[in-house]
Parts: sequence; structure tokens; C-alpha cells
Amino acid sequence: MSPVKVFGHPMLTNVARVLLFLEEVGAEYELVPMDFVAGEHKRPQHVQLNRLRRCLGSKMATESRAIAKYILRKYGGTAGLDLLGENSGIEELAMVDVWTEVEAQQYYPAISPVVFECIIIPFIIPGGGAAPNQTVVDESLERLRGVLGIYEARLEKSRYLAGDSISFADLNHIPFTFYFMTTPYAKVFDDYPKVKAWWEMLMARPAVQRVCKHMPTEFKLGAQY
Amino acid sequence: MSPVKVFGHPMLTNVARVLLFLEEVGAEYELVPMDFVAGEHKRPQHVQLNRLRRCLGSKMATESRAIAKYILRKYGGTAGLDLLGENSGIEELAMVDVWTEVEAQQYYPAISPVVFECIIIPFIIPGGGAAPNQTVVDESLERLRGVLGIYEARLEKSRYLAGDSISFADLNHIPFTFYFMTTPYAKVFDDYPKVKAWWEMLMARPAVQRVCKHMPTEFKLGAQY
Repeated sequence: MSPVKVFGHPMLTNVARVLLFLEEVGAEYELVPMDFVAGEHKRPQHVQLNRLRRCLGSKMATESRAIAKYILRKYGGTAGLDLLGENSGIEELAMVDVWTEVEAQQYYPAISPVVFECIIIPFIIPGGGAAPNQTVVDESLERLRGVLGIYEARLEKSRYLAGDSISFADLNHIPFTFYFMTTPYAKVFDDYPKVKAWWEMLMARPAVQRVCKHMPTEFKLGAQY
Repeated sequence: MSPVKVFGHPMLTNVARVLLFLEEVGAEYELVPMDFVAGEHKRPQHVQLNRLRRCLGSKMATESRAIAKYILRKYGGTAGLDLLGENSGIEELAMVDVWTEVEAQQYYPAISPVVFECIIIPFIIPGGGAAPNQTVVDESLERLRGVLGIYEARLEKSRYLAGDSISFADLNHIPFTFYFMTTPYAKVFDDYPKVKAWWEMLMARPAVQRVCKHMPTEFKLGAQY
């Protein structure tokens, strides 16, 4: 089978998500660079932050979870992985769906604005853009704490979110949490020991490490990503 | 098989979503009232709008899509329905996943703030609450137009979002779009004729009509819902 072509740079969270599942199932892939970042650099200085954030939000979030599911269905069988729970009962499958939905609808909207404000917008706006909007950051952190509290209670009862086995739902947390952990707010996780241990367990996976080594922990304008 | 118990009032979008799929598969169900609305009415006058919106957003959005999938897997076979595309090839299944994700990540965040501002917040805040935040409404409508433009292009190529057959992805649009159509902004859809025809096709389904007759088109404080 010819390698799967993945368009874009693994620093982008949607690309990282797709690579993560390709690595988990052990599928061969080939990265095809795109000049998305360069293109963004060429935007005029007066670009509106809100519009940009919305546009980026759209590029980052859409469909990468669906692509990841397709990869798992296409290659997961060979790797003996059942991350979607489709070989289990419909109750187990429903738990994976529930926690996948919690990630997409609760966790992502809480954590992503911090990553946008602290990392993505300063990196993309020419000249480093404005300082992070502290109101957005503070409101998002408050919301994130609420979500992490629910996760802490859940992870007291099971090893992973959907049960005692790792699933699609857990792995979907990686791209944005990885970048969040490079912000000054990473210590928020220290108040949730079960969540922190779960995160460390995810980061210790060889497939995760292979993808994360392509994700920069420092962003510098003009650097070659 | 004993009827499925559904907790809550069908005026709530998450309850309506679950009922919709129960009606589509023809499963028997029993509505168990909850005093969610009454409870909200007792909140002190000084409740913060933002906090309430976030809290409601959470109640409304979380997990109802996962519950709906569970219903389709449990009862859909008997009804001969394959709304998730799980009896088709993995490419068809991926199209259902993609458009389900577009609904959850693009359409819902664009349309729901208008429904919150124009209907839900004025209904829940004692005394009718403040006037809708026009900035939020205008930004959401701009975002919604962007999403509807993508839908229009898609629906020029296929009868439904994921292909020529109706799927889970289409039906998920119903609860919030139904309420949006009762706001002064319903005419936004007139600029997207394919989308409008698709919406009318969805609304013509007997299962949809059975659920929507429980969803009020006018909200009055003190009325019995």
C-alpha cells in the first residue's frame, strides 16, 4: 500500500491529530508541506484578530476528528487496535462517543482560546501581534477548571476517559493540551492529580512521542517549521 | 421491550435531538418531566449572563449526539435505517462523520448564540432579562452566513450533506435551526436556496413533525411547557 499523504506541517494541531492516529496504527505516511504559515505571514498588518481567530479556529478544528476515525477504521484492524470501541458492545462504543463529544464540545472550547491567545495569534500576526487578551485567557481558564474537575472525578473511577482502555476520546486531547503545556498556565493541571497522571500516561506513548517531537515548544518568527 | 425513558421537556434542544432519533427509528419512549426550567426561574436576579450562557451551553450541547448514536445503533437495525452509514463502506461512513463534525464544530457555534440571545436567555432570566446582545447576534450571523455558503455549495452536488441519502449529520441540525427559524433572522436562509430546500425536506419528515409539535414557537413566561 502506498504511504498516506498528509498535507501540512505537524506543528498544526489538525495535522498533528491525523499523524497521531497514523502513528498509533503504524500506517506509513508521507508529509507534504504546504505554505499555510507563510501565507498567513503575508496577511496585511490590519487583519482583524477576531476574524483571524475565527478563520484559524475553522481550519484547526474541522474534520480532523472525522479523518482520524477514517484512519482507525482503515488501518486499525491490522494493528489490532480498537480505539473507537467498534469491536466492543454498543454501551462501550457509546462511552467512547460521549467522551469524544465532551472533548470536542467542552474541553476544546475551553483550552483552545488560551493556546490561540498565547501562542498562535502572536506567532501568526506580523510583528508578534498584540499581547494576549487577558479577559479571554481568564474566562477560558475558569471554564477549563470546570471541565478538569469533571475529568478528575471521572478518572477516579476509570483509568482512561471512556473506560479502562485507552480510546479515540483520550488521544484527541493531545494536540491542544501539548501546546497549552508550553504556556505559563500549564500549572493549572497540578490541581487535578488524576488528570495530570492521565496526561503523563498519554505523553509516554511511543506514537505520541514520535508526533510531538515535530511540534515546537518555542515559536520564533522567521524560524523554519 | 419497555419504553425508553427520556428525562426532560422536548422544548430543550438536547431532549428534542434524542426524541428525533427515537421517532426516526420508531422506538417507544416515555417522557419523564424534570423541573429544569422551574429551577432556572428560581435563580437570583443577579445571575451573570455569561455564566448562565456557558452553563446552559453545556447542558444543551453535551452528549446528546452520543446518546442519539447509541439509539440508532440499538434500534436502527429493526427500522432498516442506516443513518450513521455503518452498513456502507468506510468512505460513506467518513462522509457522515465529516458532516456531523461540521454541524457540531461550525454550524452549532454559529447558530446557537442567536438562539441563546433571542430566545433562551430572555425566557430564562426573570423579568425577561436584558435585550439581546446585538454584537453577539451580528457576529454569529456573519459566521452563520459563511457556514451556509459552504452548505449551499455542498447541496448543489448532493441531495443531503453526506450524500444522496439522509444521515445522522442532517438530522442533528434540527433542534437549533427550528428555534432559529422563529427569530427575526430566519430570512438569512432565503439567500441560500439549496439550503432552504434541504431544510424544508427535513421538516417534512413525519418523525421531525412529531417532535417539533412539542417545541414552542412562542415563549411566554409563566406558560406551561
